[in-house]
Amino acid sequence: MAGSSFGTVFKITTWGESHGKGLGVVVDGCPAGLSLCEEDIQLFLNRRKPGQSRFTTPRKEDDAVEILSGVFEGKTTGTPISMVVFNQNQKSKDYSEIASYYRPGHADYTFDKKYGFRDYRGGGRSSGRETIGRVAAGAIAVKILHTLGISLTTYTKSIGPVCADPRNFDAEEINNNPLYMPDAKAAEEATRYLESCMSELNSSGGVVECIVRGMPAGIGDPVFEKLDANLAKAIMSIGAVKGFEIGDGFAAARATGRDNNDAFRLGADGTVQKQTNHAGGILGGMSDGSDIILRASVKPTPSIAAVQQTVNKAGEEIDVSIRGRHDPVIVPRAVVVVEAMTAITLVDALFLNMSATMDGLERFYR
Amino acid sequence: MAGSSFGTVFKITTWGESHGKGLGVVVDGCPAGLSLCEEDIQLFLNRRKPGQSRFTTPRKEDDAVEILSGVFEGKTTGTPISMVVFNQNQKSKDYSEIASYYRPGHADYTFDKKYGFRDYRGGGRSSGRETIGRVAAGAIAVKILHTLGISLTTYTKSIGPVCADPRNFDAEEINNNPLYMPDAKAAEEATRYLESCMSELNSSGGVVECIVRGMPAGIGDPVFEKLDANLAKAIMSIGAVKGFEIGDGFAAARATGRDNNDAFRLGADGTVQKQTNHAGGILGGMSDGSDIILRASVKPTPSIAAVQQTVNKAGEEIDVSIRGRHDPVIVPRAVVVVEAMTAITLVDALFLNMSATMDGLERFYR
Amino acid sequence: MAGSSFGTVFKITTWGESHGKGLGVVVDGCPAGLSLCEEDIQLFLNRRKPGQSRFTTPRKEDDAVEILSGVFEGKTTGTPISMVVFNQNQKSKDYSEIASYYRPGHADYTFDKKYGFRDYRGGGRSSGRETIGRVAAGAIAVKILHTLGISLTTYTKSIGPVCADPRNFDAEEINNNPLYMPDAKAAEEATRYLESCMSELNSSGGVVECIVRGMPAGIGDPVFEKLDANLAKAIMSIGAVKGFEIGDGFAAARATGRDNNDAFRLGADGTVQKQTNHAGGILGGMSDGSDIILRASVKPTPSIAAVQQTVNKAGEEIDVSIRGRHDPVIVPRAVVVVEAMTAITLVDALFLNMSATMDGLERFYR
Amino acid sequence: MAGSSFGTVFKITTWGESHGKGLGVVVDGCPAGLSLCEEDIQLFLNRRKPGQSRFTTPRKEDDAVEILSGVFEGKTTGTPISMVVFNQNQKSKDYSEIASYYRPGHADYTFDKKYGFRDYRGGGRSSGRETIGRVAAGAIAVKILHTLGISLTTYTKSIGPVCADPRNFDAEEINNNPLYMPDAKAAEEATRYLESCMSELNSSGGVVECIVRGMPAGIGDPVFEKLDANLAKAIMSIGAVKGFEIGDGFAAARATGRDNNDAFRLGADGTVQKQTNHAGGILGGMSDGSDIILRASVKPTPSIAAVQQTVNKAGEEIDVSIRGRHDPVIVPRAVVVVEAMTAITLVDALFLNMSATMDGLERFYR
Repeated sequence: MAGSSFGTVFKITTWGESHGKGLGVVVDGCPAGLSLCEEDIQLFLNRRKPGQSRFTTPRKEDDAVEILSGVFEGKTTGTPISMVVFNQNQKSKDYSEIASYYRPGHADYTFDKKYGFRDYRGGGRSSGRETIGRVAAGAIAVKILHTLGISLTTYTKSIGPVCADPRNFDAEEINNNPLYMPDAKAAEEATRYLESCMSELNSSGGVVECIVRGMPAGIGDPVFEKLDANLAKAIMSIGAVKGFEIGDGFAAARATGRDNNDAFRLGADGTVQKQTNHAGGILGGMSDGSDIILRASVKPTPSIAAVQQTVNKAGEEIDVSIRGRHDPVIVPRAVVVVEAMTAITLVDALFLNMSATMDGLERFYR
Repeated sequence: MAGSSFGTVFKITTWGESHGKGLGVVVDGCPAGLSLCEEDIQLFLNRRKPGQSRFTTPRKEDDAVEILSGVFEGKTTGTPISMVVFNQNQKSKDYSEIASYYRPGHADYTFDKKYGFRDYRGGGRSSGRETIGRVAAGAIAVKILHTLGISLTTYTKSIGPVCADPRNFDAEEINNNPLYMPDAKAAEEATRYLESCMSELNSSGGVVECIVRGMPAGIGDPVFEKLDANLAKAIMSIGAVKGFEIGDGFAAARATGRDNNDAFRLGADGTVQKQTNHAGGILGGMSDGSDIILRASVKPTPSIAAVQQTVNKAGEEIDVSIRGRHDPVIVPRAVVVVEAMTAITLVDALFLNMSATMDGLERFYR
Repeated sequence: MAGSSFGTVFKITTWGESHGKGLGVVVDGCPAGLSLCEEDIQLFLNRRKPGQSRFTTPRKEDDAVEILSGVFEGKTTGTPISMVVFNQNQKSKDYSEIASYYRPGHADYTFDKKYGFRDYRGGGRSSGRETIGRVAAGAIAVKILHTLGISLTTYTKSIGPVCADPRNFDAEEINNNPLYMPDAKAAEEATRYLESCMSELNSSGGVVECIVRGMPAGIGDPVFEKLDANLAKAIMSIGAVKGFEIGDGFAAARATGRDNNDAFRLGADGTVQKQTNHAGGILGGMSDGSDIILRASVKPTPSIAAVQQTVNKAGEEIDVSIRGRHDPVIVPRAVVVVEAMTAITLVDALFLNMSATMDGLERFYR
Repeated sequence: MAGSSFGTVFKITTWGESHGKGLGVVVDGCPAGLSLCEEDIQLFLNRRKPGQSRFTTPRKEDDAVEILSGVFEGKTTGTPISMVVFNQNQKSKDYSEIASYYRPGHADYTFDKKYGFRDYRGGGRSSGRETIGRVAAGAIAVKILHTLGISLTTYTKSIGPVCADPRNFDAEEINNNPLYMPDAKAAEEATRYLESCMSELNSSGGVVECIVRGMPAGIGDPVFEKLDANLAKAIMSIGAVKGFEIGDGFAAARATGRDNNDAFRLGADGTVQKQTNHAGGILGGMSDGSDIILRASVKPTPSIAAVQQTVNKAGEEIDVSIRGRHDPVIVPRAVVVVEAMTAITLVDALFLNMSATMDGLERFYR
């Protein structure tokens, strides 16, 4: 089937494998007239680049993006924007061993079951590099949202047992530490935890959180296209994500109605506002005007140096230890991917909402 | 926008409001030749019926389903199956008060912001009755899965702080208690907890868990149409669901790679099997042949008798207390809805998978 | 597969068989706030009713529509509008003979090949009654278009060899004759032609033409979602339609560039206008502000009383003569169906166009 | 909106402008295991190359395709196949004049109305070069069809008033003359006609015909996703196409039922066969096992050297004469595009059909 597109009227289609010629994305449905240049995209791609700290792989990859279409004289034309990052060292090493067995926690086995064989070089289509297209498209979505006064803040909420303390939340700190945590103290503690993981040939999971500010109320749909349902799909489609929450998420299951309901009050400006935000900015599938808050649970890096049990293609049980340098934690590099997928989902919802009422329709066309 | 359809080749379209003439669903893409009668559907609808215990609303609703099309001489014809449940007492009471203000935790406010006005009778399209169409369609999906040897077990995992103990898991117990818990002792404890909630004019949240057995490996897609991403959307599209997990879910964020990776081993029959199932049956977006395990976090019933603060349409801050009898917990009635949405998602994925390889294509057509 | 939906953001889903319990449609994506009642729909359904002249089947069918959802206090709510026409005499006659062989020109054979069996009563899902859902949905689309100043005129252009003369075009005449021809003289001639067809146990084809006035320029898309491409699909999806033209259509293939190009000039009001309209109102897939003109070729009624050769399910060659009264021409009853499908396509295109530019987006949301 | 994708489970997404960096396509949903190399694609692209006769533009363009993803060790992997043709001389000439006015018969005006501005270089996204992506994707679709025993023959049926005589039909002749006509005598006559058009600074339209052999019966859907409806959209989405016919097309409108119905008979092998093929291989929206025959009406090249009237962006009426060398007829280069779009549509229909019956489903999965 065709599973490499996301979105309905703001639609992205990604392609490419870890060690093929390159990776890219076609962004279709971007409105005409948005100022756009390669630097806008590159800034986002740089946030997911490896080699930025001792917790990310030291591979040298420039990941320089090229815009191949859809922009003319510095502005989007309304036609598809094709972007590509060419791979620089496609044939760097011997993957014959990895081709012979199924790595635990990876998609090797399921790829073989679905397609009969697989491009085993560096994970192929299931590599973390698959997110390059998502992030490039997300850069455009974020720019569209900014135009409408909507902004996103995304960061590492926790790494293993170490959680950023909400009381220490400091947005500026996010870009000060290589873990993208909004709490300097927690970042230090997480650093020590990751060092201990590495020394034990082990890896760690963590949680990414994203906050959206400025989203108008009434966006999303009340049934299958609930805004939170689409956000869930967007976030869960990122490799290694195993859980999704909106607002209080799983804590809401343990709460009572008195605690969980958000009271409505009038703001200083006379507008309706919620006093609390357990709902995470979405009621009945539609944005309620308060901050949208979502979280993704990211599993530990499956590639670990410790010895593991698996099976090879000859049908033998074997012991393996994944060679090469691998990030001991995926979370920091997933931050920008979560932001990208969130932004893409919101833009699509905003566009789809434009025909919600006859009033809006008549205002637009008459 | 059109937000009342779900699925690509096995597609359902639901319609109807709580107090309109009825609610229904069109199931399009059901293969021809499936034995189907109204009783097959009614058995599923009965599982979501109110009035079955003291924790569900005592409203008398028969919710008798009629199949209007797509079945001929006891078999599906391949054309759309239209099903309807007519509402029996549409004009039972006066909703003018509820129309005047925004109930906390409900979609009243967001509906008004999106559409300019709303059908305020009993929640309109946002009522729990909206799930009738989902469950009727789910009954068909479950029947298709059974034909392929795939079965689902769905139950209440927890209510408020009371969690079913996995060591006491008893599948037969699920239908023995009105809470659909697989652990008689936990069910008793949860009953006491709900009684205390009710006495305090309060309500409780909880968790639904679904286990899928017999799913073949290799179903789903490696990028945006990951099987778990589509399950997340399906489950998060159910009203009141605030979180979704696959396998270890948020616990994976706190785990290490050594603990979280599932080793591959050979089964007695020589097939590849996983020794553990932290992944919840899905690797890289595709089923891995082990049980698929998912969970939904359900928030507490927002309609509570306790006094709450809100705002009315005249722009005044008021105190309200939601009158009428409401379930103190949504979870037990959500169990069959989670099962239905899971089944619908799996059927669609199985159908879409049929063109994954040239081998399969040639085998089918030549 | 799921093939009973049409449209992207204004989406209709039809269901029902000729002799099942009823036929209906779910219209999803209709903006909130449109005044709508059953009479609005019924007026359109009456235009496709049988029994209106001696060229339509004398079957007594009231085809009274019921709106089951999506309308509250006389206005659409933005949620799906479910409409149904219940069949009145489901078990009227014995279809065992028709079940045993393949009628030439009908879908009997292809249904059996695709689905393994079929609902043979009165054509089942392939009956002309399948258009009830299209027409009911089209009534809503036409009403939306009227609100925006867009109107449609649809009529019988030709029947067999008899063509309405453009010089005699009289819009008021369309509803004066049972053939819906805009030329009284041609209508008389066509009447005589149809009488001769009937006396020879034969039937006739014809052409339906639709003119859209008031469509703003710039609607549609330049590549796959060209407005004329979507109109072609919409019209060709109507049973018995074998050809589609926009503007000069097949005559353009015989023309030269000098003749076929439409010159641009300035109108009295200073706006850009085309001097001629060979293009039929669409250039490069987008509306150009002039009238949209399209035509559908409708084949002769395949059910004829004359003796025909066919094969039965026992694998024998037989001679058959289709019993019962059948319209000698489908065209007049197809007029409203062409109008409905055209309107549905235009509404969807107008909605999708709203996010074409950043200017429009900012104007809408800020 | 996102209008650059076509297909549901075999989906193509094209991008690129005439004078941008390049043009390309992402083919998503191609089954794993198809042998594929760049030469397979290049052979198709060469059929649409300019500079092949005195009736095609003498521009030197190599249009060499590169496969960037989705193929590993000579076989498709099931993941998206990204293909690109880089433009070689992007900045060759001054387009400032063309930017200032609306060329008659082109999309200049409608682009400006929709998007506010346009990439005016060589037609931008509306250039004939947009078909590069379609043809590259079509090469893959044709290869899949061949594997299933399905073949396509596509050719120029007529140019202006000159029509290939069916009695002279010679499939081998198609590639013998630069007009791709299957009748050497008609090709000579058409050549003389085109020379006269050129001498008068004029251009000609024509008709492309495509015949599909070996299509199994029962493919397609009975309502909106009729196989002929999807073919109509596919073909009408090609620039310059103004009409579409299946089988007898518009001639069916002038025919009677006796003439138009195809009798069913038993073939020598006992299978059901049609004695004639007025239906063009499709009954009720589904293939009937006989040849599928379709035609596209292609308008005359709008770019002509003759003086034409138009309006410029300053709001003045002006006279223009389109400079540069342009093909006096689009038809020969459209032949491979019609074949490509037909093949893409058929592959999608074949894939979607796999879940039509429970029998097929059980056979596939058990």
